[in-house]
Amino acid sequence: MSLNDLSATQAVDKIQKGEITSEELVQACLERIDQIDGEIEAWAYLNPDYALEQARKLDLIRQAGDPIGQLHGIPVGIKDIIDTAHVPTELGTPIHSGRVPFKDAWVVSRLRQAGAVIMGKTVTTELATYAPGKTKNPHDPNRTPGGSSSGSAAAVASYMVPIALGSQTNGSIIRPAAFCGVFGFKPSFGMIPRSGVLQQSLPLDQLGVFARTTDDVALLTQVLAGYDETDSATTFLRATTSLISVAAEEPPSPPKIGFVKTPVWDRADEMCKGAHEELCETLGENVEEIELSPSFGHVLDHHKIIMEADLAYSYEHEYESAKDLLSNSLRSQIERGMSYSAVAYHQAMSQQVVLDDILGGLFQEYDAILTPSVSGEAPIGLDNTGDPSFCTIWTFCGVPALNIPCLPWRKRNADWHPACGSKK
Amino acid sequence: MSLNDLSATQAVDKIQKGEITSEELVQACLERIDQIDGEIEAWAYLNPDYALEQARKLDLIRQAGDPIGQLHGIPVGIKDIIDTAHVPTELGTPIHSGRVPFKDAWVVSRLRQAGAVIMGKTVTTELATYAPGKTKNPHDPNRTPGGSSSGSAAAVASYMVPIALGSQTNGSIIRPAAFCGVFGFKPSFGMIPRSGVLQQSLPLDQLGVFARTTDDVALLTQVLAGYDETDSATTFLRATTSLISVAAEEPPSPPKIGFVKTPVWDRADEMCKGAHEELCETLGENVEEIELSPSFGHVLDHHKIIMEADLAYSYEHEYESAKDLLSNSLRSQIERGMSYSAVAYHQAMSQQVVLDDILGGLFQEYDAILTPSVSGEAPIGLDNTGDPSFCTIWTFCGVPALNIPCLPWRKRNADWHPACGSKK
Repeated sequence: MSLNDLSATQAVDKIQKGEITSEELVQACLERIDQIDGEIEAWAYLNPDYALEQARKLDLIRQAGDPIGQLHGIPVGIKDIIDTAHVPTELGTPIHSGRVPFKDAWVVSRLRQAGAVIMGKTVTTELATYAPGKTKNPHDPNRTPGGSSSGSAAAVASYMVPIALGSQTNGSIIRPAAFCGVFGFKPSFGMIPRSGVLQQSLPLDQLGVFARTTDDVALLTQVLAGYDETDSATTFLRATTSLISVAAEEPPSPPKIGFVKTPVWDRADEMCKGAHEELCETLGENVEEIELSPSFGHVLDHHKIIMEADLAYSYEHEYESAKDLLSNSLRSQIERGMSYSAVAYHQAMSQQVVLDDILGGLFQEYDAILTPSVSGEAPIGLDNTGDPSFCTIWTFCGVPALNIPCLPWRKRNADWHPACGSKK
Repeated sequence: MSLNDLSATQAVDKIQKGEITSEELVQACLERIDQIDGEIEAWAYLNPDYALEQARKLDLIRQAGDPIGQLHGIPVGIKDIIDTAHVPTELGTPIHSGRVPFKDAWVVSRLRQAGAVIMGKTVTTELATYAPGKTKNPHDPNRTPGGSSSGSAAAVASYMVPIALGSQTNGSIIRPAAFCGVFGFKPSFGMIPRSGVLQQSLPLDQLGVFARTTDDVALLTQVLAGYDETDSATTFLRATTSLISVAAEEPPSPPKIGFVKTPVWDRADEMCKGAHEELCETLGENVEEIELSPSFGHVLDHHKIIMEADLAYSYEHEYESAKDLLSNSLRSQIERGMSYSAVAYHQAMSQQVVLDDILGGLFQEYDAILTPSVSGEAPIGLDNTGDPSFCTIWTFCGVPALNIPCLPWRKRNADWHPACGSKK
């Protein structure tokens, strides 16, 4: 087993005990990247010296016996819409080529406080919307990795880093996690502060994580969750649960799971439908199918109005100053966004509360909702990042969402790509 | 001196000491109303039995020696857009004629907890916008009392009640207070919860008070200020200052006052301009004229976009179901509101923070800003409620605003109307 195969939780433990150094771990990850990233292209910015220098400093701290953080020495991939001080953050568009922020985003600052190594910047789609970046699916370079957090999903899936950060305004964490076969977690809206992250849509933008184990999902989320007064979506009233202990516990009683097909079930392919039916059979009496209220049938429209109107507002500068450098798809989104009325926007927003209340009622009865992350396996072709529609309801309502890489196509996909096949 | 001439502060003291009863006070106010309201028409709903019954119950509580509230036995006028349980709240429009809420607004509940007598409902303009109600200016029935809190201002000015509640989305407290010659106070945005009050514009709607003394302004505001989790504009982080003690204190050092003409100074008439110059001379070295940043020149446009778009959203039901019962002016506002884009709305909203920050800077240097409440005395004619533009900046930025009835035209006006002339 190579060091880059370790989970963050395992690696932290070994670093803490002095069994391995951060430098060795980062070096192993860099070698893995060197070996396979020529084909996958998960990184927008990667400077081995920058990563190794952090690792060496962190090793000195540990060797000195000083207190160490929860992610001490662990390399983390950072989606390239999340600001990193003095390190390029180019937002997936030539318009911001060469952009270097002076200040870390809140989450990056949190990572540094926890002793993480900022490994580099992972590829995002154009301004975190739909036009793909250069990244390929690590299981099959002819398939999309999903987006917009393409590089983070691919880097974790291909063992280049154990964990990475992403963001989701529609399906940008859950979808690439599903297509790449890793855990992707978007906690509740407002749980992770967004200050210093490209703003696409204030009521929809949410940060989250990629990992290969649930322990790592819990560990990284716990480091990132918090209150930041400059992000009004966050609140210090939210009690800080120890996600790490909760993730390690057995459930106190058998969980009651609601299986929800969502209004877009028809878009799911046969493999997806069959796999979910099989999964429900396996789960047996713990799961029952529930119908969402018909009001959820309009979520895609509401979400589109809010997201596109917000894109038009947030990317006004890019549109006005460099329209030609935008993709056709983003230009169309912005132009549609300009056409929505304030009243239509308000009406769509008013549905967030209504629908979230309905979900609140469901969660009184069910511990979790089981539903497809995507319509099927990663589609062939690199000209788009796939259909996000299975994610929209949960993003719109701001409820936590976790992609669990457990369905058969991931295993099959793994065989397609020798670089990763050996890992599964 | 008749009991209805007492301020709330004076009356509470006398009730507490047993010198007068709430029933006597309410009776005196009812007699005053009976005597002059035929001409002024400040009330949308008034049931003497309902008021007297509350007063008698409150008198029994005091006589039993039970603890009494800060407004024990004091009659309060409630603007007719503020819900009162089982008492009509008709919102100033025939569309809602006969509407009776089941639940008190948060502020009404607070008043009852403080022992106030809900005297009745005061006239509002149509849905708290610009089309006038039936109320006349108590100093001259040929002049507007201002709006939208017309009845509350007129009732307090003409000694029908000592205090009353109003609301302001542009100039609906400060303007009628100025036209009627009473104190009108709109505290900071978010200080008084709005739950159970007609929603016109979430980012602009603010509640406030009318009174004839600063003591009463402080007393009533202190009762109403608080946190309500259903109004996201409120926060329990705001320290509760004792407004009553602060209002009674001498300032610790001579106040430094900034005189601001605002971008609409040209709309002020000669009497208003002259009176302000005279006032500045009187205040001498405590006051200096300051220029607002040119960014404030666009506030009227930003405010209009937000308010009208929000009207279109908030009154969609009234517009769709009973367009013919709306005034032309409100119909036009709603129709303009429908035409604004979500992006224009966002752009206008983004200026709130920017401009409020600039004001924050000014308040580092100045204790208060002195500026006209209105462009001059109440205009002749009852077909409109006058120009709110001197109020717009302060409402838009959510800063506290107080009308001080100190300029000469109020004294002159007082002579015009024998019913009130004797009071000044």
